Amino acid sequence: MKKEENFSEWYNDIIERADLCDKRYPVKGMNVWRPYGWRAMQLIDSLIRREMDATGHQEVCFPLLIPKTEFDKEAEHIKGFNQEVYWVTHAGDNELDVPLLLRPTSETAMYPMFSLWVRSHSDLPLKVYQIVNTFRYETKQTRAFIRMREIHFFEAHTCHTDFEDAERQIKEDLEIMERIAKDLCLPYIATRRPDWDKFAGAYYSIGIDTLMPTGRTLQIGSIHQYRTNFAEAYDIKYETPEGEHRHVHQTTYGMSERLLGAIVGVHGDDKGLILPPAVAPIQVVVVPIFKKESRETVEKEAEKVAEELMEGGLRAHLDMRDFRPGYKFNDWEMRGVPLRVEIGQRDIEEGQVVLARRDTMEKTSVSRGDMVEKARQLLEEIAENLRSVAENYMCGKIKTIRDISEYEEGTIGRIPWCGSPDCGHEIEDALDVSTLGTPVEEEDVGGERCPVCGGEAKTWLYIAKTH
Amino acid sequence: MKKEENFSEWYNDIIERADLCDKRYPVKGMNVWRPYGWRAMQLIDSLIRREMDATGHQEVCFPLLIPKTEFDKEAEHIKGFNQEVYWVTHAGDNELDVPLLLRPTSETAMYPMFSLWVRSHSDLPLKVYQIVNTFRYETKQTRAFIRMREIHFFEAHTCHTDFEDAERQIKEDLEIMERIAKDLCLPYIATRRPDWDKFAGAYYSIGIDTLMPTGRTLQIGSIHQYRTNFAEAYDIKYETPEGEHRHVHQTTYGMSERLLGAIVGVHGDDKGLILPPAVAPIQVVVVPIFKKESRETVEKEAEKVAEELMEGGLRAHLDMRDFRPGYKFNDWEMRGVPLRVEIGQRDIEEGQVVLARRDTMEKTSVSRGDMVEKARQLLEEIAENLRSVAENYMCGKIKTIRDISEYEEGTIGRIPWCGSPDCGHEIEDALDVSTLGTPVEEEDVGGERCPVCGGEAKTWLYIAKTH
Repeated sequence: MKKEENFSEWYNDIIERADLCDKRYPVKGMNVWRPYGWRAMQLIDSLIRREMDATGHQEVCFPLLIPKTEFDKEAEHIKGFNQEVYWVTHAGDNELDVPLLLRPTSETAMYPMFSLWVRSHSDLPLKVYQIVNTFRYETKQTRAFIRMREIHFFEAHTCHTDFEDAERQIKEDLEIMERIAKDLCLPYIATRRPDWDKFAGAYYSIGIDTLMPTGRTLQIGSIHQYRTNFAEAYDIKYETPEGEHRHVHQTTYGMSERLLGAIVGVHGDDKGLILPPAVAPIQVVVVPIFKKESRETVEKEAEKVAEELMEGGLRAHLDMRDFRPGYKFNDWEMRGVPLRVEIGQRDIEEGQVVLARRDTMEKTSVSRGDMVEKARQLLEEIAENLRSVAENYMCGKIKTIRDISEYEEGTIGRIPWCGSPDCGHEIEDALDVSTLGTPVEEEDVGGERCPVCGGEAKTWLYIAKTH
Repeated sequence: MKKEENFSEWYNDIIERADLCDKRYPVKGMNVWRPYGWRAMQLIDSLIRREMDATGHQEVCFPLLIPKTEFDKEAEHIKGFNQEVYWVTHAGDNELDVPLLLRPTSETAMYPMFSLWVRSHSDLPLKVYQIVNTFRYETKQTRAFIRMREIHFFEAHTCHTDFEDAERQIKEDLEIMERIAKDLCLPYIATRRPDWDKFAGAYYSIGIDTLMPTGRTLQIGSIHQYRTNFAEAYDIKYETPEGEHRHVHQTTYGMSERLLGAIVGVHGDDKGLILPPAVAPIQVVVVPIFKKESRETVEKEAEKVAEELMEGGLRAHLDMRDFRPGYKFNDWEMRGVPLRVEIGQRDIEEGQVVLARRDTMEKTSVSRGDMVEKARQLLEEIAENLRSVAENYMCGKIKTIRDISEYEEGTIGRIPWCGSPDCGHEIEDALDVSTLGTPVEEEDVGGERCPVCGGEAKTWLYIAKTH
């Protein structure tokens, strides 16, 4: 299956063959997480937990069901989600007095409680997060990990004394994003979405987008500054040291199983997945290679090799299945295991093993004594290589253009912009693209002019086709 | 708050004060997991995962929503759950063609997929599990962790070639239960439920019950032998080596957040929680004790103490809050931290620390060099003590009786039984108790007679009031 020829087919095929998920579940847009895929997702979750814990966020778990009465409190938010929510109307034979909705995101579940939890300035900042599944009735074509109706979801919610402290939180979120993306070997651009495309209820939204091999961007994270929009709707107030009562300023930070979708899409090749070592359920697979007469010796030694790798803190797996080595090689390559150890009779005699990289397919022999250290080093090199290949690919697709006609299909356009929504919409309409937004880290735009109105450009605008 | 005087009030009070959950969420029977409670639950989950992984089960995650068409396939199962399910009937403004229900348990979500996954004898045994929330519209009075409408749930599902292999699975499940209960310091009795109280769709059910301080038992686990009941309804078949097609035999094993409810109820005392070390989010809390002039020295040393404990692999927390030591002692005792380290100026001078046990409230001084080892040892002793106190309490409440009139309120009755359902029902009705069932590990009943019909007893029957 050629990734470049038909990405969509390649993607759909590989996620099932690699045992990430099963799409045959009898509800459209809701897949079954298979053991291998679920393990990879849990490893991604554990990276998120690591970052959250290190930055003083506390993990909570809120109920799935939200009463309509609470959902109805923030008008913009309702508008954004009203058409996407699943409604629970009955229990047993009874019609419920108040219909309940499945959380599409948890603002309206959490904020009634925040108004009870936050009393005084000493309760702030409040920083909580949860990793749960959310539900959105997608009308567009669904796609595993990328556009689902049941979504494995991470959401952090914070409350602050003032706008500036909330802004500091957003800066922290961007740093967290950087560390997580580094582990996932995913390049991204962080842009402030235009006002016409911000999150329902937000003061402003930052989108984190990566580029898929389709030439379309995929949003893999979002950070929202709510200011006091929700605090006013949900009456979340604190008492200042001076005895005044003020609304808190809020932020949220969200990511989802799209991180896994991006990993599959960005790193995979015609042989299958290539998993970044940080989230590979199996980092090193050990394959014994033997003729009939050496089987026992080789298998015994292979066991020792796997043990040594595990003792060295690596997620190693010994493949003792009754298949030919070539079959096993293909199988683990397809599943994206970043490193393979081969060991045969001759290797044993020479006190060595063969290490085979999944990314470059290079093989090297190393002495047994150096194996663990070398494996660790290669895993780092593999991560570094995945990062730089993906980074180069994406950067090569960001094209600065000064006229609408210069935009190339399959690229991310970077275009000078006067800041007027009218000009923004005209660019979108003319090219049938979406506006990602303006770069979070300022980029000099001195002397440039908006290609629509000819006015002075205030910022660069990123545009792309999106997933 | 006195636990013995009013258990129910004590329980409701302590779980909120100890920050396990918040019951003020605006949907009845659905609570918010607070950080401390969620951490304890995650530690319980990690014990379950440890056992599942060690016994070759694979973790999966199935969708929450089940189409009515799949739910409707096993008649007994529907009968059991029909009145308890939440129905999703609409999405956005649209009425769904097929109503979807929130999983009350996942047989009807999983088994349509099992019929695709199982083809050949070489696919068996299939052993999967998931840890998810389930939903049951409880009509009885709800209670945190014990009777909820959203339930944090563990469920293992297995498929086997024949009845005997499924029976071996059940034996393995019982061994897993034993290891988990040991870590949670919970005594239990395992009984085969009478036919009139087995799980909807099961061939037989085993209940795992512990005894709460109310004198009522609490079911904390269940294991079901399905035989081919579900396999027939969902057409789960495999091909034998001889080319025959046969239905698989199935089992399930379930536990839930009730494990945490049992921990709270069984181990707690008037001062608050006592958490078993294996699942205590904080195993050792370090409290510096100082006068103004020694503050800096003591706090610095307390930091080192906490670091040493963490390096020793213990979950330690340093309490640097600006409160008096007495307040902190009470606070951490209330939250059930099993061990406290106190360190003051005098201790530093003498190169020692004070260790205070939460269970017995005993204090001992140990030299700094022995601290980590001694802490580890004390945590084991605490676990051992919690286990034996709880075991003694429960065993003391199991009363063998030979006449119905001998049954005492607040005990578990052990009564000879002829095996006839009529006699069983008569015992239940006369005493207003439930039948737990017959012991899974056979107990000699030679020469005993059924107190209802006077016939020869075939087994002992355990009866109790239940939560």
